[in-house]
Amino acid sequence: MDAAGAAVDVDSGGAVAAVAVVGSGSIGVAWATVFAGAGRAVRIFEIDPARRAVVPAEVEAILDGLEAAGVLEGSASQARARITVWSTLAEAVEGVDYVQECIGEDVEVKRRMFADLDRLTGPDVVLASSSSTIEASRFAAGLDGRERCLVVHPGNPPFFLRVAEVVPAPFTSERSIRVASELLQSCGIAPILINAEIEGFVFNRLQGALLREAYCLVRDGVVSPVDLDTIVREGLGLRWSVIGPFATSELNTRGGLRRHAEVLGPVYARMGLERGADDPWSPETVERVAARIEEALPYDSWDENVRVRDAAMMELLAVRRGAANPLGAGGHVAGA
Amino acid sequence: MDAAGAAVDVDSGGAVAAVAVVGSGSIGVAWATVFAGAGRAVRIFEIDPARRAVVPAEVEAILDGLEAAGVLEGSASQARARITVWSTLAEAVEGVDYVQECIGEDVEVKRRMFADLDRLTGPDVVLASSSSTIEASRFAAGLDGRERCLVVHPGNPPFFLRVAEVVPAPFTSERSIRVASELLQSCGIAPILINAEIEGFVFNRLQGALLREAYCLVRDGVVSPVDLDTIVREGLGLRWSVIGPFATSELNTRGGLRRHAEVLGPVYARMGLERGADDPWSPETVERVAARIEEALPYDSWDENVRVRDAAMMELLAVRRGAANPLGAGGHVAGA
Repeated sequence: MDAAGAAVDVDSGGAVAAVAVVGSGSIGVAWATVFAGAGRAVRIFEIDPARRAVVPAEVEAILDGLEAAGVLEGSASQARARITVWSTLAEAVEGVDYVQECIGEDVEVKRRMFADLDRLTGPDVVLASSSSTIEASRFAAGLDGRERCLVVHPGNPPFFLRVAEVVPAPFTSERSIRVASELLQSCGIAPILINAEIEGFVFNRLQGALLREAYCLVRDGVVSPVDLDTIVREGLGLRWSVIGPFATSELNTRGGLRRHAEVLGPVYARMGLERGADDPWSPETVERVAARIEEALPYDSWDENVRVRDAAMMELLAVRRGAANPLGAGGHVAGA
Repeated sequence: MDAAGAAVDVDSGGAVAAVAVVGSGSIGVAWATVFAGAGRAVRIFEIDPARRAVVPAEVEAILDGLEAAGVLEGSASQARARITVWSTLAEAVEGVDYVQECIGEDVEVKRRMFADLDRLTGPDVVLASSSSTIEASRFAAGLDGRERCLVVHPGNPPFFLRVAEVVPAPFTSERSIRVASELLQSCGIAPILINAEIEGFVFNRLQGALLREAYCLVRDGVVSPVDLDTIVREGLGLRWSVIGPFATSELNTRGGLRRHAEVLGPVYARMGLERGADDPWSPETVERVAARIEEALPYDSWDENVRVRDAAMMELLAVRRGAANPLGAGGHVAGA
C-alpha cells in the first residue's frame, strides 16, 4: 500500500481524539508535540519524577521552535495546553483512543508494558510501539488484545521527519493498521506499510547498509569520517531529500531505471561481493521497480521529468542559500 | 584531508582562468555552468553537430534557473557569454589551465582521450576525469604527463550537489590535487580527497550499499518501490541533508557515537550477516570515528548539539513548507 492509497473511513484515526504517550525520552516528547500540534489531547506517562519535572520545558522548546518556523497549526501555547503528564499508567491511558509506547528497546520490558496496556485499555484502543528493532510478534503475541498491537516506528525526531513505518504482526487487525495510518496522516506524517516483520524494518535497514559501508571505508583509510559525512550531507542526502534512490536511478540515464541497472548493476554487484553480499539485481526485480517508478515518472516524459527534478533542486538551493548549518563543520567552503 | 583544510597558494585553482569541458552530455553541460558561474572562461568540446546545436539552449536553461533561484553571482547572460562550444579538441583546449573530461564510461575511450589531451596541452594543465567508476590508474598510467591526471567525480547534477570527490592515482602530483581542489572550492564545491582508487570511490559506494539493500527489500516484498523512495526522501535523505550519518549516530543517543555503536552495532552487524557481509564495527574503528566527529561536536555539549540539530531541522522545515515537490508522488499526505 502506498501512503496516498489509504481510504478514509469514519472508524479511523480521524476519530482518535486523545493519545497516550508512554515514556518521555526524546522520542516520546517529540511524538507528544506532533499529536498535540495536530489537535489531539496528549497524556504522557512518565514514572521518573526527575523526568516529569523537565518534560514541560522540553515540550515547550520544541513547540516554540515549530511555531517560530511557521509549521504549527495554531499556537505553541494552544498545543502545549493539550499535553498533560501523569505518574501512573492507569491515569495516562484514561479515555484515550490510541497509545504510542516510547520506552527502552528491551523485549521483556515491552512485554510487561503491553500486558499492562492490554489490561488497562478498552478493546478499541490501538496500542503502538515506537520500537526500531523489536517486532510486535515478540512482545504482544500472548495478549488477549494482540490484534490491536503493532509497531509504528518514527524517524528521529518525528516532528521533522514526516514519515513513519507501520509494521503489523500477523495477528494485527486491519482496523488497527487503518486507525494508526489515518492518525499519522492527519498529523502530516506519511504512514508506510511494511509487509514483513523483518529486523530493523526498512528505515534502519537502509540506514544500516549505508553505515556499514561507511565504517568499512573509514576502517580502510579511504576517507575521513568528517569528509564522509560531508559527502552524504552535501551530496547523497541533499539529493535524496528531493528525489528517492529509485527515482534518482530512473532519471540518472537516458533509458531510465532499466538502463541504469544494466550499466551500474554489475558495478554495484561487484562492490557488494567485495563485502560478501551476493545479491545481484534480477531482471524480474528491476522490471518490478521500473514499472512502479514509471507510473509516477512516465518514461515518455523523461526530459521533462529531469527538468522538474532540476527545478525542484534549484528551489531547494535557493531556500538553503544563506541558511547557517552549524553541523556542517569541515564541509562548508567559502563560496557555498 | 578535510575540505576546510586545503591551504591557499598562488600556484592554485584560483589561478585557473580558463577551463575546457570535454563532452557535452548532462554532466558536461552542468560542469560548464558551474565553472562559468564562478567567472571562468569555459570551452566545451563536442564532436557531434546535433549535440553542439542544442548545448547553448541547455546551458541557458540551467543558468536561467540558477539566476531565478538567486544562487548565481552575476547574471545568467554574463555566465553564458563565458561559454563557447568547439568542434575539435585542439580548439577546445587552447589556452586553458584545466580540463574536465565528461565522456562515456569506457576505459579504452578514456585512454585515447587522455593521450590526446596529454599531447595537446602544456605540462601545467591539469587533466581531470568526471568518471564515477574508472580510476586514473586505468587510463593515464602510460602517459608522459600522467602526474597531471586524476579523477574529479561530481555529484549529479554538479550545479546542485556542491561536493566532488578528488581521486588521485599514485602517480598524480600534489600540485595537480591542489589545483583541482582549489578550483572546486573557488566554485563553491567542497573537494573531498579520496585516499585510495577503490572502485566506485565513496559517493557511489555509499549509494550502492543503500541501493543494494533497497533492491533486496523490494525483491522480498517487504516494501513497495514508491514507499521505499518515500522513506528515503521524507526520512533518511531529509535528515542526511542536515546532518551526516556519523553525526546522526553521535546525537542519536546519550552517550554519543560510542554508545550508538554499542547498542546498534550488533543489530546492524546481524542485518549485514543476513546479506552475507561479515564486517562488524571494531572498537578501534568506532573510536577513530568518535574521536573525529567529537572534534566537531564535543560530547560535553551534547544537549546543546541536539538543540542545534533540531534548530537546523526546523529552519529547513520552515523553508520547505509549501515548496511543491512534484517528484513526491505517492508519498505526500494531506497535512504535510
